[in-house]
Amino acid sequence: MEFKNVSVVKEANVYFDGKVTSRTVVFESGEKKTLGFMLEGDYKFNTDAEETMEILGGDMSVQLPGESEYTLYKKGESYVVPANASFEMTVDKYVDYCCSYKK
Amino acid sequence: MEFKNVSVVKEANVYFDGKVTSRTVVFESGEKKTLGFMLEGDYKFNTDAEETMEILGGDMSVQLPGESEYTLYKKGESYVVPANASFEMTVDKYVDYCCSYKK
Repeated sequence: MEFKNVSVVKEANVYFDGKVTSRTVVFESGEKKTLGFMLEGDYKFNTDAEETMEILGGDMSVQLPGESEYTLYKKGESYVVPANASFEMTVDKYVDYCCSYKK
Repeated sequence: MEFKNVSVVKEANVYFDGKVTSRTVVFESGEKKTLGFMLEGDYKFNTDAEETMEILGGDMSVQLPGESEYTLYKKGESYVVPANASFEMTVDKYVDYCCSYKK
């Protein structure tokens, strides 16, 4: 699948020494998504806007705000993280993802 | 810097267990580039078309076809790999790159 008529920022967004990276895609509507990749590791991220995370490949275990356990999300699945929240994740091998930011 | 009016393939291209990944960007002219990221490691790639590799962040040492030594390429620098060739590289930390394929 492709995103058409978009702008892409050349430089990667780099986190955790490059174990998590993403590229920013901007749509004509102004909507923003990032296409990202995480290697094996435990990570914590904070949200500003609400985020929808779609798994494009691999899998990741995620502890969403207010939840006491981790849930495994696999290719084709997605989850929503509320605005102004933090969430923790464990990646066993790698995960390819698309993150959509609510405007 | 941004690429405007392009198409982006959602799924990542994944090599070497995810230590090398890229996203494919297609321009209105049909020209194709990949925006990629390599973590620490030694890699060998083969070309079909001639490739121009531009370093967007970090650095990499590259042994081009016919050369006996490795050359370090840093942010802002680039090199050309001929078509139908192989080249070897060593990444010490990470490198963010843009690869342009000659049509």
